[in-house]
Amino acid sequence: MSRIEAPRDEVTGNLLDRLREGLPAEAVLADPDVTASYANDMASFCAAGIPAVVVLPRTVEQVQHVMRTATELRVPVVPQGARTGLSGGANASDGCIVLSLTKMDRILEISPVDRIAVVEPGVVNATLSRAVGEHGLFYPPDPSSWEMCTIGGNIGTASGGLCCVKYGVTAEYILGLDVVLADGRLLSTGRRTAKGVAGYDLTRLFVGSEGSLGVVVRAILALRPKPPQQLVLAAEFASAAAACDAVCRIMAGGHVPSLLELMDRTTVKAVNDLAHMGLPETTEALLLAAFDTPDPAADLAAVGALCEAAGATQVVPADDAAESELLLKARRLSLTALEAVKGTTMIDDVCVPRSRLGDMLEGVERIAGKYGLTIGVCAHAGDGNTHPTVCFDAQDPDESRRARESFDEIMQLGLELGGTITGEHGVGVLKKEWLAREIGPVGVETHRAIKQVFDPLGILNPGKVF
Amino acid sequence: MSRIEAPRDEVTGNLLDRLREGLPAEAVLADPDVTASYANDMASFCAAGIPAVVVLPRTVEQVQHVMRTATELRVPVVPQGARTGLSGGANASDGCIVLSLTKMDRILEISPVDRIAVVEPGVVNATLSRAVGEHGLFYPPDPSSWEMCTIGGNIGTASGGLCCVKYGVTAEYILGLDVVLADGRLLSTGRRTAKGVAGYDLTRLFVGSEGSLGVVVRAILALRPKPPQQLVLAAEFASAAAACDAVCRIMAGGHVPSLLELMDRTTVKAVNDLAHMGLPETTEALLLAAFDTPDPAADLAAVGALCEAAGATQVVPADDAAESELLLKARRLSLTALEAVKGTTMIDDVCVPRSRLGDMLEGVERIAGKYGLTIGVCAHAGDGNTHPTVCFDAQDPDESRRARESFDEIMQLGLELGGTITGEHGVGVLKKEWLAREIGPVGVETHRAIKQVFDPLGILNPGKVF
Repeated sequence: MSRIEAPRDEVTGNLLDRLREGLPAEAVLADPDVTASYANDMASFCAAGIPAVVVLPRTVEQVQHVMRTATELRVPVVPQGARTGLSGGANASDGCIVLSLTKMDRILEISPVDRIAVVEPGVVNATLSRAVGEHGLFYPPDPSSWEMCTIGGNIGTASGGLCCVKYGVTAEYILGLDVVLADGRLLSTGRRTAKGVAGYDLTRLFVGSEGSLGVVVRAILALRPKPPQQLVLAAEFASAAAACDAVCRIMAGGHVPSLLELMDRTTVKAVNDLAHMGLPETTEALLLAAFDTPDPAADLAAVGALCEAAGATQVVPADDAAESELLLKARRLSLTALEAVKGTTMIDDVCVPRSRLGDMLEGVERIAGKYGLTIGVCAHAGDGNTHPTVCFDAQDPDESRRARESFDEIMQLGLELGGTITGEHGVGVLKKEWLAREIGPVGVETHRAIKQVFDPLGILNPGKVF
Repeated sequence: MSRIEAPRDEVTGNLLDRLREGLPAEAVLADPDVTASYANDMASFCAAGIPAVVVLPRTVEQVQHVMRTATELRVPVVPQGARTGLSGGANASDGCIVLSLTKMDRILEISPVDRIAVVEPGVVNATLSRAVGEHGLFYPPDPSSWEMCTIGGNIGTASGGLCCVKYGVTAEYILGLDVVLADGRLLSTGRRTAKGVAGYDLTRLFVGSEGSLGVVVRAILALRPKPPQQLVLAAEFASAAAACDAVCRIMAGGHVPSLLELMDRTTVKAVNDLAHMGLPETTEALLLAAFDTPDPAADLAAVGALCEAAGATQVVPADDAAESELLLKARRLSLTALEAVKGTTMIDDVCVPRSRLGDMLEGVERIAGKYGLTIGVCAHAGDGNTHPTVCFDAQDPDESRRARESFDEIMQLGLELGGTITGEHGVGVLKKEWLAREIGPVGVETHRAIKQVFDPLGILNPGKVF
């Protein structure tokens, strides 16, 4: 059986013509050198295709036009923010429309009384954080990429960050959304009130759906009052197990740190090698705890005592904000430092019940040994969210294979410990084979059926998540 | 065209036989006097049918058997907790199976390190709260009915309570669910970790779905450390507008009260009439604020000053827990007191942006005048969640009609002010005509399509929500 295909350039030509009917010329990019630069997010080991076109709409109506055109011509659409994602969720597929929301970057409203902000999806996280800060307000979610990543991307991946242990993740700050559906219709979900239970929680269905159900074009965000400046403590341990024990003691003790981070020996050494920070090379694990309470020094003293009870070899509380910032610098450099070890990293994102954090770290060390690899772990320890980071030479095929295998084995370990394959980075293409293992066959069937409701033609970010 | 129907008793007989194949005899109640007692929740003006049977399963397998039987015989199923709901969401439909989860009432796990509890749906809210309290933990959602209502019911309606202003609503404490689907399959959603973003957020889709998508048989709940005992302040105002202004000043000032409640003149008078509490009858609005911070007296002093700046005529901070409890007693008696005014009440549940709270109270007073009715307002003021309570004589048809009309007009007002028709009570049958006005046609279509995914035969709590 034969079917006559139009030549690719004719198909693309028609697509471009149709897009330009509802978008200004400068919002439709078709130069292959330019479109190729939109092919990838920041994940390793994730295939990406070549986009047919990149569109940069500035209005809701323009996004609707893009989706109507895509539906009519059956062209896949890949929504993108700043492409700082770590799971390939924003990678292009061949012949797709890359729908970049970066030009829709207005903060539409900030209300200190209602404690909300209304924003377009392209607003950069740090821009929003600073803007609300001027009103004495606080938008907590703070992914490492906060100076670059967009709120729309944060919503798509349901991102986390350092302060989640006290303030929770992105999902908890999304009150309502305007979403352009696959066929171009506009759906408003949620509300701008502090509470509301009218109908199904469609807002949360879109948060973390990685662009597979619709395109977020406006968000109503919940804000909090700006807390006091946090004060940080560093505690060194002679074993990772002891540091994990300290984490359990701190959380079981009813403390509410604004940050509780762990760096293992490999990470500490990598940071020292990179930045010559003079961290003690004998440290097997470094724990950073912070409080933004009215009396952080008192809280740090209590937590310091718990660290000592768990076997900390040294406990160093910061005296002021500057010292605190210095202690945090080591943590912030971790991924860059681990990248420098062998040139390439695969950052895993396994979250386990915090009571199993010690088992997780022990298991990762075993896996690193088994595969003969360097795997550094930094972790949002208070949440049990570990980032085992496999360091490897991408030019070495065997090491690359071992890297990928160890990465998968770490996810398997996470599931065995009652955890999840992704705490905050999302599934994307990197982990889609693993989602089914976590959510089971009924879960997969339910996901497919919901996808079918929102995207019957399968044009929204195809090949991602499941 | 004629169709031969089996006589009702034969249909029911078959249903009972099939149910008994998978349930012990004492778990299948068919005596009409008994089943009739399961027909209603606590809402006024909500039609209820006569159940064919009430089942009281004790295991997940038994619930699966009930749903398989219902699917096979096409019998509607109405899931029920303690039937303390206020929107008719748990009312029986004619010939239905009432699926009462009250016998599945075990607390399966409490973990202070992981700060979670795992429970069956029939656990009473207060039972859970006390049990976790013994571990130094806190399950915040505290609906007024907390001594009776079940966690499963709380999940179904996404209930709120007095402490939401600081701690949020039920939805924020549900990490994962086991749900029996309409066809009897078991779906596990979510996780027991602090964070997790693997796949769509199906957990939140079930929370607040009022039994229309599946039957929750197990829940993983997030817990917090138990906060210090709260200290309460009462402030009297010469106008409702001044009290609402105080609420805005408190929230804009960055304060985080653990409770911020408002009672209007009508409510204060009703409480005085019922309980002779000696509240000043000249009070036009009473505001109660509480803090459970390390230094609540300091926070109360700051908030008291803001109340005075807004025109409070008197500010009375409690000195201790006993005095605080006394101040809260008036608030807790509000609904009972308003019920005593005319014998019957319709409790509305409109939530507006808190910046519009003053407009809401003014509007309700106007509506009360227009319909010649007594409408008392108590409100979770910090959340903008008002409970305008229409007092009427149910024996008087004209007054009953005016009550219903005023109730609807209050919802219309809420929507005009940018609010929602329900902050915490749910839609049920009471407000289903109103849901479409709030969520719009695309929202309704989306709701219907999602319902179709989970319940293609339409047997799960039919006639509710939309």
